[in-house]
Amino acid sequence: MQIIDGKAISAAIKQEIAQEVEAILANGGKRPHLAAILVGHDGGSETYVANKVKACEECGFTSTLIRYEDDITEEQLLTKVQELNEDPDVDGFIVQLPLPKHIDEQKVTEAIDYRKDVDGFHPVNAGRLAIGLPCYLSATPNGILELLRRYNIETKGKKCVVLGRSNIVGKPVASLMMQKQYPGDATVTVCHSHTANIEDECRNADIIIAALGQPHFVKENMVKEGAVIIDVGTTRVPDATRKSGFRLCGDVDYDNVAPKCSYITPVPGGVGPMTIVSLMKNTLLAAKHEIY
Amino acid sequence: MQIIDGKAISAAIKQEIAQEVEAILANGGKRPHLAAILVGHDGGSETYVANKVKACEECGFTSTLIRYEDDITEEQLLTKVQELNEDPDVDGFIVQLPLPKHIDEQKVTEAIDYRKDVDGFHPVNAGRLAIGLPCYLSATPNGILELLRRYNIETKGKKCVVLGRSNIVGKPVASLMMQKQYPGDATVTVCHSHTANIEDECRNADIIIAALGQPHFVKENMVKEGAVIIDVGTTRVPDATRKSGFRLCGDVDYDNVAPKCSYITPVPGGVGPMTIVSLMKNTLLAAKHEIY
Repeated sequence: MQIIDGKAISAAIKQEIAQEVEAILANGGKRPHLAAILVGHDGGSETYVANKVKACEECGFTSTLIRYEDDITEEQLLTKVQELNEDPDVDGFIVQLPLPKHIDEQKVTEAIDYRKDVDGFHPVNAGRLAIGLPCYLSATPNGILELLRRYNIETKGKKCVVLGRSNIVGKPVASLMMQKQYPGDATVTVCHSHTANIEDECRNADIIIAALGQPHFVKENMVKEGAVIIDVGTTRVPDATRKSGFRLCGDVDYDNVAPKCSYITPVPGGVGPMTIVSLMKNTLLAAKHEIY
Repeated sequence: MQIIDGKAISAAIKQEIAQEVEAILANGGKRPHLAAILVGHDGGSETYVANKVKACEECGFTSTLIRYEDDITEEQLLTKVQELNEDPDVDGFIVQLPLPKHIDEQKVTEAIDYRKDVDGFHPVNAGRLAIGLPCYLSATPNGILELLRRYNIETKGKKCVVLGRSNIVGKPVASLMMQKQYPGDATVTVCHSHTANIEDECRNADIIIAALGQPHFVKENMVKEGAVIIDVGTTRVPDATRKSGFRLCGDVDYDNVAPKCSYITPVPGGVGPMTIVSLMKNTLLAAKHEIY
């Protein structure tokens, strides 16, 4: 059994990106610039955005954090999005989700110029991903593919079970895993709350990508000997022994499942760090105008 | 075993559309207008476009057929696309594929204003389909869903195996069948040329959607008792007894498979007629500006 070390790989990729930025600057180019809009003070969002800003520093990017209180109107937010769309110095930007209930998230997502949509949430990027065209790949799915790639894990003809059908993980990663490429060419099954025999589906899988958000959902008896397990879950579970008061809990019962696997991602330190690195990669692509 | 009569359903829907057009006209509205660009003289394309023009007549739509010879340049074609984008009388239009090799199909598809892209091939429509937002659904997948709907076939929690991963059938129909809706909520597996045990996958399926383009690929021993079979195949097989010199052959060995099924679509007369009707429905939606 081999633990997939997302932390080490993400560190290596950030270094690769930083070197490329050095080369761009040495050639008289502009430093890549990622902007992030954060509305309100959601604990998870604060952490994510802080990590993104830190990753920008590590990669040698300029980063701009734009903060608003919860009471910002949708119109004000859309005005800011438009401003960033038109700002030639900003290569890419994100609006951290979730947004307060009075703001239409989909409307905001679609207001972002798809050429600066480094989160890959705009329909143009989601559509190009589904069709198999170059695009800003959604960060978590892209991070998962990068892990498979760096560990040379075979995917062609393998049975891949995706648990969860969200727009940001389950559906796009299923789409990518079935494309004619590596990683890809897998036989993909998407399971969800209405799946009749989810245990059987998992037991037949060579690769399980768990993105349900249900702590320890995948048990030892649901995993076949030698399977590859990618755990996308990051549920915050109260933990009085931690300074933060919580710990992150994956969708996989790691301690019992790991011994049966050929490869497995831990939580934390698996998919999580890769997600932010994917965002950095998209920002670099945006700065280089490689896709649009 | 019940034969799903796509011909009868498509006729009924065309009548429903014609009645709605009558009502629009009675209220002083404009007659829906579909335009089609046909390049060259491919036999299949000629037939499809002729059938689309005929369907427009049955629905009470205005139709415009724009023909070009094989030697039209990409630039000339793109100019025409732009013209149709800007023509306020044209509600929707299609460019019949395939195009001659010297023309970039993807470029032409993306040049179509997504608000007039009644084929649903533009990345915006493909992306909105994947995300689960209102859009012009790709015609064949939408036709398949309509058949399931009209026959009240249960899909929630059912195992649905899609054979084939094309951008116009396999991938979008898989996406739709896993959405939180009816028809949908199925556990979807997409199989293709690299799938290891395609027979086993099929044998476990409650619903098989065959879109491989391989005549009689699905045999009796691959189908479980009581399965629902949707056959998207329309391969032209030489047949000297026909005036046309060929007959359409589905992906399913119909004669041997049908007795085991609860429902099955014949070829021809199953999915085929529904595809054109979906295009008519999208054109009506475009004329009513219901989506964009």
